[in-house]
Amino acid sequence: MPTIQIKDASDYVGQRVKIGAWLRQKRGSGKMVFLQLRDGSGFFQGVVAKADVSEEVFETAKELKQETSMYVYGVIHEDARSAFGYEMKVDHIDIIGESHDYPITPKEHGTEFLFDERHLYLRHLKPYATLKIRNTLIAATYEFFNKEGFIKLDAPLLTGSAPEGTTELFETDYFGQDAYLSQTGQLYAEAGAMAFSKVFTFGPAFRAEKSKTRRHLTEFWMIEPEMAFYDQDASMALQERYVAFLIEKVLEQNDQELDMLGRDKELLRSYTQLPFPRVSYDDAITLLQDNGFDVEWGVDFGSPEETFLANHFSKPVFIVNFPKAIKAFYMKRHPEREDVVISADLLAPEGYGEIIGGSERDTDYDYLKQRIEEDGLGLEEYSWYLDLRKYGSVPHSGFGLGLERMVTFVTGEEHIREAIPFPRMTHRLRP
Amino acid sequence: MPTIQIKDASDYVGQRVKIGAWLRQKRGSGKMVFLQLRDGSGFFQGVVAKADVSEEVFETAKELKQETSMYVYGVIHEDARSAFGYEMKVDHIDIIGESHDYPITPKEHGTEFLFDERHLYLRHLKPYATLKIRNTLIAATYEFFNKEGFIKLDAPLLTGSAPEGTTELFETDYFGQDAYLSQTGQLYAEAGAMAFSKVFTFGPAFRAEKSKTRRHLTEFWMIEPEMAFYDQDASMALQERYVAFLIEKVLEQNDQELDMLGRDKELLRSYTQLPFPRVSYDDAITLLQDNGFDVEWGVDFGSPEETFLANHFSKPVFIVNFPKAIKAFYMKRHPEREDVVISADLLAPEGYGEIIGGSERDTDYDYLKQRIEEDGLGLEEYSWYLDLRKYGSVPHSGFGLGLERMVTFVTGEEHIREAIPFPRMTHRLRP
Ligand SMILES: [Mg+2]
Ligand SMILES: [Mg+2]
Repeated sequence: MPTIQIKDASDYVGQRVKIGAWLRQKRGSGKMVFLQLRDGSGFFQGVVAKADVSEEVFETAKELKQETSMYVYGVIHEDARSAFGYEMKVDHIDIIGESHDYPITPKEHGTEFLFDERHLYLRHLKPYATLKIRNTLIAATYEFFNKEGFIKLDAPLLTGSAPEGTTELFETDYFGQDAYLSQTGQLYAEAGAMAFSKVFTFGPAFRAEKSKTRRHLTEFWMIEPEMAFYDQDASMALQERYVAFLIEKVLEQNDQELDMLGRDKELLRSYTQLPFPRVSYDDAITLLQDNGFDVEWGVDFGSPEETFLANHFSKPVFIVNFPKAIKAFYMKRHPEREDVVISADLLAPEGYGEIIGGSERDTDYDYLKQRIEEDGLGLEEYSWYLDLRKYGSVPHSGFGLGLERMVTFVTGEEHIREAIPFPRMTHRLRP
Repeated sequence: MPTIQIKDASDYVGQRVKIGAWLRQKRGSGKMVFLQLRDGSGFFQGVVAKADVSEEVFETAKELKQETSMYVYGVIHEDARSAFGYEMKVDHIDIIGESHDYPITPKEHGTEFLFDERHLYLRHLKPYATLKIRNTLIAATYEFFNKEGFIKLDAPLLTGSAPEGTTELFETDYFGQDAYLSQTGQLYAEAGAMAFSKVFTFGPAFRAEKSKTRRHLTEFWMIEPEMAFYDQDASMALQERYVAFLIEKVLEQNDQELDMLGRDKELLRSYTQLPFPRVSYDDAITLLQDNGFDVEWGVDFGSPEETFLANHFSKPVFIVNFPKAIKAFYMKRHPEREDVVISADLLAPEGYGEIIGGSERDTDYDYLKQRIEEDGLGLEEYSWYLDLRKYGSVPHSGFGLGLERMVTFVTGEEHIREAIPFPRMTHRLRP
């Protein structure tokens, strides 16, 4: 008798199999018990009929508690009424691990409670579906960038320098030196692009930010590609292909999970139609002003502005060439204008905000040296970065996509804490 | 005229193309200049013949400095004499970025100097080949575990608890609380396995260890799979399939890089023959004693013992069932013996040491609670972990593979600092 996983049940219709599983819920009458089972690969129902099993097995089934683990034995049947398509006619049960007073009962629980119990909450439908989709996005990222000729180049997490000032960085003692947890691997990715042409980092990043919004985590994952010989247009073309690829992969591989989350799949599919609109920052300001927003040229966009802009175009939209004053020192100067840089942010519709920030990078040693000095960043810490402009500088571009932002956008989740297995926020460091 | 990358030169034989590239080295006579070029995708030679180009182009070629960046134009030819198979007959050069006094000259440099210049050293043959192979191992890891039905489940890096005591952990202030940089995601992966059945983490890990050996980094990357319903045998079978898959992928995709590093490919191929031997810790001790090692039952193996054992079998070897006293609290007790646990370390031959450590996990709440108390680990911090044994505990196993250890083994590098783009060691936090 084969031991199988629920996801493979369709291959075993009519056969007797053994499955290791946990009880989600049960209901029943005096004659039947219906076990809602999960095994980590999927969900389905086990049916225990009093008429067909020993009294002992029927009593066992009747007494099962939520999250008890067991081996169930029985024949697989098609079940058109079930969301999962198959069920097992259970003829035997061996209990593996008992479960008493499982804390996450079928009633409604508060969010704080659920995240206090995150190690258990992972077993439930919404986290399960959300994190399966996260996994698809991760795997698709590797598939996409490998196919495009990139190599993954890991940036260090512990750094001696504080790239954007020390205010929002976690600090640690490194054998007597001050070290910081990195907010971005970009500068290292630039060194990598000069060696390998097309690289991406994909790792955790840290922000010691006190702001508590539904879009911020203190520990999150970023994908930061960097491409030698790419200008802004080539970079944006890559970005939109990447985003469309991610969404297509989820539509292809997570149909059931999208349904579990109630995500509108046709809407999601509409976001894979390229190109995404390109709107200049200047035009975006005008558009906002024309629609009653109280914004002046020069400000950064907040959540309401981002929401309006992307919804206006009904799909992800690039806002290009932001004011120099509100962007990082390394962004390329506009060839004809003093006040803007060659940058692009990609805003997602439906209120999900900025999912990508990117730019062409300035290639000039003297300009960057001056900007580093002006920004008070410490020339010594950046001397290695400036070397990249000293020894064979080339045009290059790059961008960063926040994985959890992308997860919320694709899954339709409201809060970013849902998008990572064990979220870290100002007030949450456990479990 | 197409703009191409060197790796695609074979598709453009006989065509005039444009390539963005850097100068590695050059040699020449009064009539010819041979440019050793790299573009991040590969290496090849550009030939500039005085007879065929303008005086200006020939002078430009003659004056090029190491690491100058340029667009070269010309027709691609096959070149049987070159290691790379193709060359360009250059007819035009546009310099992009100058380079003067590039620090890593063709002469020999000390290791410390090369790692001070790591941001530039990445451009050179040995780091290039090593990190391309690292990339193959990363991509192959995703391919393997996705194919095997795993999902990637990211463990947090910032933790409130100190899993193996606080002695070797980097510490940070987390909004007024003590937080630690994680050494392992295993306990979180166990929670994941109870929800998703088969999961793996793949992220950085940190060890604030003062020991300076050629096998230790303070920041390194680990792959930690965890499988519900897997016993030790199933886990070891998975481990050896995984290691063989990694080596096969490198042999398949990095033939040129292995040659650049002078790695013996037939030797490497011999390590893909499964199964790997399984030797009990007891037998390993006897074998060591018979071969003149001064070891007693109960000690952990050091580098000389690991080297002897794996070399004795001429391939990776599992040492199974270590003394309980030298292993972590969560390892499963042996059903018939008090003194050992159901564990396995995989030792690589040629002196590369332990590349995998793994075990079956104990499933019993009371036993683990007692072990946590005995080890003084703080019951409160582990209460969430103990919940996994309270609510439907199931047999499960897992292991951890150190990426950089695997890179050194596959590439034949002596020192682990070569195996990561920007190594972090006790004395090195920069660049
Ligand atoms: Mg923004
Ligand atoms: Mg060991």
